[in-house]
Amino acid sequence: MYRDRIRMPALHNKVMTAAAAAALIHDGMTVGMSGFTRAGEAKAVPQALAERAKARPLKISLMTGASLGNDLDKQLTEAGVLARRMPFQVDSTLRKAINDGSVMFIDQHLSETVEQLRNHQIKAVDIAVIEAVAITEHGHIVPTTSVGNSASFAILAKHVIVEINLSQPLALEGLHDIYIPTYRPTRQPIPVVRADSRIGSTAIPIDPGKIAGIVISQQPDSPSTVLPPDEETQAIASHLVRFFADEVAHGRLTRELMPLQAGIGTIANAVMHGLLQSPFENLTMYSEVLQDSTFDLFDAGKLAFASGSSMTLSARKHAQVFADFNRYKSRLVLRPQEISNHPEVIRRLGIIAINTALEFDIYGNVNSTHVGGTRMMNGIGGSGDFARNAHLAIFVTKSIAKAGALSSVVPMVSHVDHTEHDVDILVTEQGLADLRGLAPRERARQVIDHCVHPSYRAALNDYFERACARGGHTPHVLRDALLWHINAEETGHMVAL
Amino acid sequence: MYRDRIRMPALHNKVMTAAAAAALIHDGMTVGMSGFTRAGEAKAVPQALAERAKARPLKISLMTGASLGNDLDKQLTEAGVLARRMPFQVDSTLRKAINDGSVMFIDQHLSETVEQLRNHQIKAVDIAVIEAVAITEHGHIVPTTSVGNSASFAILAKHVIVEINLSQPLALEGLHDIYIPTYRPTRQPIPVVRADSRIGSTAIPIDPGKIAGIVISQQPDSPSTVLPPDEETQAIASHLVRFFADEVAHGRLTRELMPLQAGIGTIANAVMHGLLQSPFENLTMYSEVLQDSTFDLFDAGKLAFASGSSMTLSARKHAQVFADFNRYKSRLVLRPQEISNHPEVIRRLGIIAINTALEFDIYGNVNSTHVGGTRMMNGIGGSGDFARNAHLAIFVTKSIAKAGALSSVVPMVSHVDHTEHDVDILVTEQGLADLRGLAPRERARQVIDHCVHPSYRAALNDYFERACARGGHTPHVLRDALLWHINAEETGHMVAL
Repeated sequence: MYRDRIRMPALHNKVMTAAAAAALIHDGMTVGMSGFTRAGEAKAVPQALAERAKARPLKISLMTGASLGNDLDKQLTEAGVLARRMPFQVDSTLRKAINDGSVMFIDQHLSETVEQLRNHQIKAVDIAVIEAVAITEHGHIVPTTSVGNSASFAILAKHVIVEINLSQPLALEGLHDIYIPTYRPTRQPIPVVRADSRIGSTAIPIDPGKIAGIVISQQPDSPSTVLPPDEETQAIASHLVRFFADEVAHGRLTRELMPLQAGIGTIANAVMHGLLQSPFENLTMYSEVLQDSTFDLFDAGKLAFASGSSMTLSARKHAQVFADFNRYKSRLVLRPQEISNHPEVIRRLGIIAINTALEFDIYGNVNSTHVGGTRMMNGIGGSGDFARNAHLAIFVTKSIAKAGALSSVVPMVSHVDHTEHDVDILVTEQGLADLRGLAPRERARQVIDHCVHPSYRAALNDYFERACARGGHTPHVLRDALLWHINAEETGHMVAL
Repeated sequence: MYRDRIRMPALHNKVMTAAAAAALIHDGMTVGMSGFTRAGEAKAVPQALAERAKARPLKISLMTGASLGNDLDKQLTEAGVLARRMPFQVDSTLRKAINDGSVMFIDQHLSETVEQLRNHQIKAVDIAVIEAVAITEHGHIVPTTSVGNSASFAILAKHVIVEINLSQPLALEGLHDIYIPTYRPTRQPIPVVRADSRIGSTAIPIDPGKIAGIVISQQPDSPSTVLPPDEETQAIASHLVRFFADEVAHGRLTRELMPLQAGIGTIANAVMHGLLQSPFENLTMYSEVLQDSTFDLFDAGKLAFASGSSMTLSARKHAQVFADFNRYKSRLVLRPQEISNHPEVIRRLGIIAINTALEFDIYGNVNSTHVGGTRMMNGIGGSGDFARNAHLAIFVTKSIAKAGALSSVVPMVSHVDHTEHDVDILVTEQGLADLRGLAPRERARQVIDHCVHPSYRAALNDYFERACARGGHTPHVLRDALLWHINAEETGHMVAL
């Protein structure tokens, strides 16, 4: 009975149906589930939980690593299971429930959730549900395509349900590096000093007596929904490659650059693809999510090593990578998101952080999360963990959205996720603004001259000139500062062009 | 000739007048000067520089640790010397020049300036001017009442001017712990694991051949301008003491609390004073500025150890502490601000960070710097370094200002320095809002119920209700979001009460 997957004989009698395991979850519980950006989430138990809630309603607080695949957030939302959700999500049904106030969403820096759990600052995890490729001879859990918050959830929870997913190959074992920071006040330095440092164990060490149920599943991860590069994302990538080349020419970077982090999504993935046609080599990544571009860079011989917390691939790339996984494995590590995103390590390694902005303003404040200052899109994710401590904090976006009705460069962002203090470089398909060492008025000149779409440049210049005429370190015309967002809300267009 | 102060004989011929030293500073240079919150700044040379500029105009970029005493920023501004200034200031004359756009001010997280210098991301320091109690036998520099950025300025500058200040006692020697992070990509962990860890040297190690001039001065540091506690600040302190006691009761803190950081200024100092009458003991500080309250806590037997980057005392406390400095010395250390404020150390130690807000909004976003979204007050200082990585990020302020014409709690802050993600606890004299683990709508309820002044509560409730009726994860009425600030600008009152 799955002896290669459940290697501790005493646990064989814990195998049960997903429905039986879901019955261990009670109304009012806080549940910690595996899963980070559609990779490695528990699948059968949450589906059974949603099913059961239709007959017998219950509400839980759900914590994960980041977003889930297989429409789980949709199913759980529709079944009315979610009272509270943290620290990230990307599901349109859940998003609607968050924005109408029916689900309380706590949007967190992804490195911080388990720190707060460990310190009892948020409600304790009653039960953890963790997808695994195997349980070891010692009863330890071998994660699948993500680590996320799984290790701390399993360690801190009173009870653990393990989903052994037969579609996740045993070849994944050995990929993970599980390290938990020691307790305060006697915490020691986290010993990661290179992207390829291995500092922990390959399985999550827990007391096997806590394993309350084992469920066998076979459902694969959802494939990535990332779109292929287009003309604008290629332009963004080429501005960045030129900037990096210039940094090398000035002696501020070597041709190996520094360890790279790229946020989730189409634009960041396209930027990484841009490095395929670049003079840089022997690159490393110290990132959260490893997307198609990571493996394309391996295949092209550009990338020496990649550290992440999850792997989220398209169906095509997944098939190729998993057909010959051992070819990649020695150059890969998956870590807990607390470590992949840890300020200590990010500052030490000097990471180049590339994340996507929803919009930014002329002074370089970035909004990553809220449309019109009110409606949550996905969440801040790891962008703040990386941007604050990076060697270079880079934000990328297309200069316009909705066929030009919206400008991504605005007088004042309607919501701030990253302050001017934390933003070094802004890039759109129009160009790149290097804001390092500049005062706000100088930053505005760079942003307007290099990043804004030509159709909005005159309007933004007009705003900036009127603001400067009123004075101030960061000049604004408060009556007009949010007008573009108000216009967008009321007319669908930020500015009558 | 000051043999106890200049212990390397080869340097004795470098002694010169302040005017001669100031002549080493040329138009267009970037100058790095010692000084952090009115403590330990070079005094004679900048005064001579201002004097000289009246006859022969010149412009420089001036970097320091933080603010300067002895009206130096005023004198330099009035003499037209400052083209650019970073990373902090508190002077009203300089502030005016910043706000009218005549001085470019770069407002930085205080831990980050020398990181950017070391990586050549901002213009290199041409010359450093460092106040010292002595130069050692090896030509190394012993700082005075602050370390700030002095060590990296001296190490990275082409030339160094040392101001030996005879009013700074030799007893200060041994107080400092100079540690510079190793270069990337081979940087190792910073080995501070407790507030009292000593990891470096007691003097700044430089090639003495770089010392281009030595100036003898006697001018003391300016005394602190902190006001004594009043009824409101005492109320803020007692809310916090009650909160800490509750954390202890729930097992989330011990009676030793965690290492404390307190921002500069009257309110934070008063909060620390509040700990004199508390059940906590064997406290430690891991902070930037050590103010009167630090030494009052030592005197009361409450404080075991204090780590900072500077000491800024009132005239009364200064006289008392320096009359018997050896009594305190073994329980004190002054570090470079890169280390006192380092994200790595702050997160590791689990600091309780207490900083002052200018205003905050119902969702817990904090403005530390800009009046009306435009006019710079002082700068973000170290508040972001601490708040982002703290065990508890606490912001304090009085609920009203200008005799009630302004509310410190507003619908939307006019400038964001600390986002909702980074703010755990808000305190005014009205009460304390514990925002941990709450979604924005829940945060708003806490803030309105506990922090706002009663005269603004109805208006804030009205805003929040209208915003919620429109929906969104973080509900806002964009047309009204900044109205209170617009009213204040136009009428002097935020709301017609």
